[in-house]
Amino acid sequence: MNNKTTAIALVTDFGLQDGYVGIMKGAIASINPHLTVIDITHEIPPQNIAAGRFCLMNAYPYFPDGTVYVAVIDPGVGSQRRGVAIQFAQGYLVGPDNGLFSGILRLSEAIAAVELTNTNYWRVQDPSSTFHGRDIFAPVGAHLASGVPLNALGTSICCDSLVKFPLREVTITDNKINGCIQYIDHFGNIITNISRELIRYKNWSVEIGQKQIKKGLTYGDVDTGELVGLIGSHGWVEIAVNGGNAQQKLQVNWGDLVTVTVGLT
Amino acid sequence: MNNKTTAIALVTDFGLQDGYVGIMKGAIASINPHLTVIDITHEIPPQNIAAGRFCLMNAYPYFPDGTVYVAVIDPGVGSQRRGVAIQFAQGYLVGPDNGLFSGILRLSEAIAAVELTNTNYWRVQDPSSTFHGRDIFAPVGAHLASGVPLNALGTSICCDSLVKFPLREVTITDNKINGCIQYIDHFGNIITNISRELIRYKNWSVEIGQKQIKKGLTYGDVDTGELVGLIGSHGWVEIAVNGGNAQQKLQVNWGDLVTVTVGLT
Amino acid sequence: MNNKTTAIALVTDFGLQDGYVGIMKGAIASINPHLTVIDITHEIPPQNIAAGRFCLMNAYPYFPDGTVYVAVIDPGVGSQRRGVAIQFAQGYLVGPDNGLFSGILRLSEAIAAVELTNTNYWRVQDPSSTFHGRDIFAPVGAHLASGVPLNALGTSICCDSLVKFPLREVTITDNKINGCIQYIDHFGNIITNISRELIRYKNWSVEIGQKQIKKGLTYGDVDTGELVGLIGSHGWVEIAVNGGNAQQKLQVNWGDLVTVTVGLT
Repeated sequence: MNNKTTAIALVTDFGLQDGYVGIMKGAIASINPHLTVIDITHEIPPQNIAAGRFCLMNAYPYFPDGTVYVAVIDPGVGSQRRGVAIQFAQGYLVGPDNGLFSGILRLSEAIAAVELTNTNYWRVQDPSSTFHGRDIFAPVGAHLASGVPLNALGTSICCDSLVKFPLREVTITDNKINGCIQYIDHFGNIITNISRELIRYKNWSVEIGQKQIKKGLTYGDVDTGELVGLIGSHGWVEIAVNGGNAQQKLQVNWGDLVTVTVGLT
Repeated sequence: MNNKTTAIALVTDFGLQDGYVGIMKGAIASINPHLTVIDITHEIPPQNIAAGRFCLMNAYPYFPDGTVYVAVIDPGVGSQRRGVAIQFAQGYLVGPDNGLFSGILRLSEAIAAVELTNTNYWRVQDPSSTFHGRDIFAPVGAHLASGVPLNALGTSICCDSLVKFPLREVTITDNKINGCIQYIDHFGNIITNISRELIRYKNWSVEIGQKQIKKGLTYGDVDTGELVGLIGSHGWVEIAVNGGNAQQKLQVNWGDLVTVTVGLT
Repeated sequence: MNNKTTAIALVTDFGLQDGYVGIMKGAIASINPHLTVIDITHEIPPQNIAAGRFCLMNAYPYFPDGTVYVAVIDPGVGSQRRGVAIQFAQGYLVGPDNGLFSGILRLSEAIAAVELTNTNYWRVQDPSSTFHGRDIFAPVGAHLASGVPLNALGTSICCDSLVKFPLREVTITDNKINGCIQYIDHFGNIITNISRELIRYKNWSVEIGQKQIKKGLTYGDVDTGELVGLIGSHGWVEIAVNGGNAQQKLQVNWGDLVTVTVGLT
């Protein structure tokens, strides 16, 4: 059994009000009380797989190697969707196979994957039809973090068969980069799927709806209440309002088209 | 002093905004930094003992043996209500004697109980009149989890004298089971006090207000926006709306009557 | 490297929704997974330095000696404001030099301070311009808590040069003590900067706006919905409504003048 250095990182849409997260942690501690459990967030908007995918992808570069990520945004719980565990170079992913993990898997290749069919590593043989986080995913994560090998957890599956979240791909034409909104944070900041690396010019602006927004370096580069485009802390083009809420100001939504225009302006 | 394997599980209505919970954890770490502290929830609706009782009762089966539960939903703080510690087979309960613990004690018998009168295990001899969580309950919980015996904490009291929360008892007549709403979660799901074990027929429906609701197995068994009755993840009859809020749809409240009708329909 | 007994206590305005706090904890665990990380709060109102200062000051007496406090309420991130680490008798403070720490420093003298200029203890040499919590403050805190000496972290600065938060000072004239609102909690309780020690009479009342409010000992000393003045759990004169929200009832705000009148009435 590993010692306290192994981390389990949790992402769910359970909220913190009803004790569901506490119960998952109780289930983990019942298997191995020495694990370090770290909350990434439990306030993913209900059933918003896109938001869960984004938070996992952004958190993953900052966690220790060997971390086991247990993620439960699971609109299909109780249906035929698969429960999976995935091994990649820096750790493990455990949760429903619904696209949640396709952000991390863009950054780091899957080495192996299993469908969670071995009920010996579940909390009970007949899990609840509505709370696999408690009965399957948290226990499996605790066992993985405690040294149980991936292939003991179930039937091997092809990594290519893992569900990918259908996010609009970035396309580049001349001096324009087309992408979309992949996340809106609780401040109303709009985060696109256009990454820093794609912008090879010092000057750029970003267009959303009919609105053209100038580039800045920090929120404070524009007056209070004004829109600014910048490279956010995760390396994506982001649209913010200094001291305000960009989503409310622009009335945009997840998935909406965003265009960056680069070059001399 | 026990090592890191002993867990303290916390339930309060303090919210996470003002630092009160952090202060309780500081008080615990000051006594024994090796304890594993697990939050069940701190967002119990203010002074809602029914909600605290329910969250404790539902969490308890999933925590390790020996866990010390510290619960502070305490409308009577500063008045004459007793502070107590209770020993039961799987662990300890610490908090105000106001019915909070009567859910767990329905599942597991009390072995012994004390009123918290020994100020040596408090943080200070003269505690604040408004924050016993910091000054009494968290320190006492930390000492218990660190090996101090129950009877050192105060005067022995009769387990039968512990306050019970006044929840409407379930009654059964012919093919009808009458119970009540014992919890409403933050999704608006309505959880009754009618347990899975009482329903011995394959077919059943549930009535609340004037509304008759059919049984399903998962939320997805009905169309979006429709009501469904099901056995929830904690084993209680539950009423939900697929993708919606059952409390808002039905305009019901804590304690309201619920009737399950079983048999061929 | 210290063992698990060293605590890092966190205060931010990041909220719990977007995973920013989880990322800071990942950055800490990547440096030293044996540290005990304790959340004081992450729901400081956005950019409200006064609230952060107050929560730190109130939490600090209850944490173990040697705790490293990492605080990130940082409206000036990306501008020229300094990042600092401060040593005092009971622990360390790490964060932006904007007045956040001036509450703790009222209670406990600074022994030494540095500007965080040694990038070897940052997560990366070129930090994000918007997320110093992840790239500078959390890593520096983890290194400090793991035994790195303060003076390795950067250039020594004069403790007197640390920014003080501009809170109205308490003044005393005859039987009147003038202070201000220094915090409003999420229940709407109003907390002044007038401390218990200043009130040397048994009888007192408190005035705010044009309203005179009588002293009680607990919330329950007045009828439901009525205002009461009391000494709160942190030792400050506080104004509350039994079962209600004092801020909403009084329509007051942070910094507003409050007067306590002492003596026979």
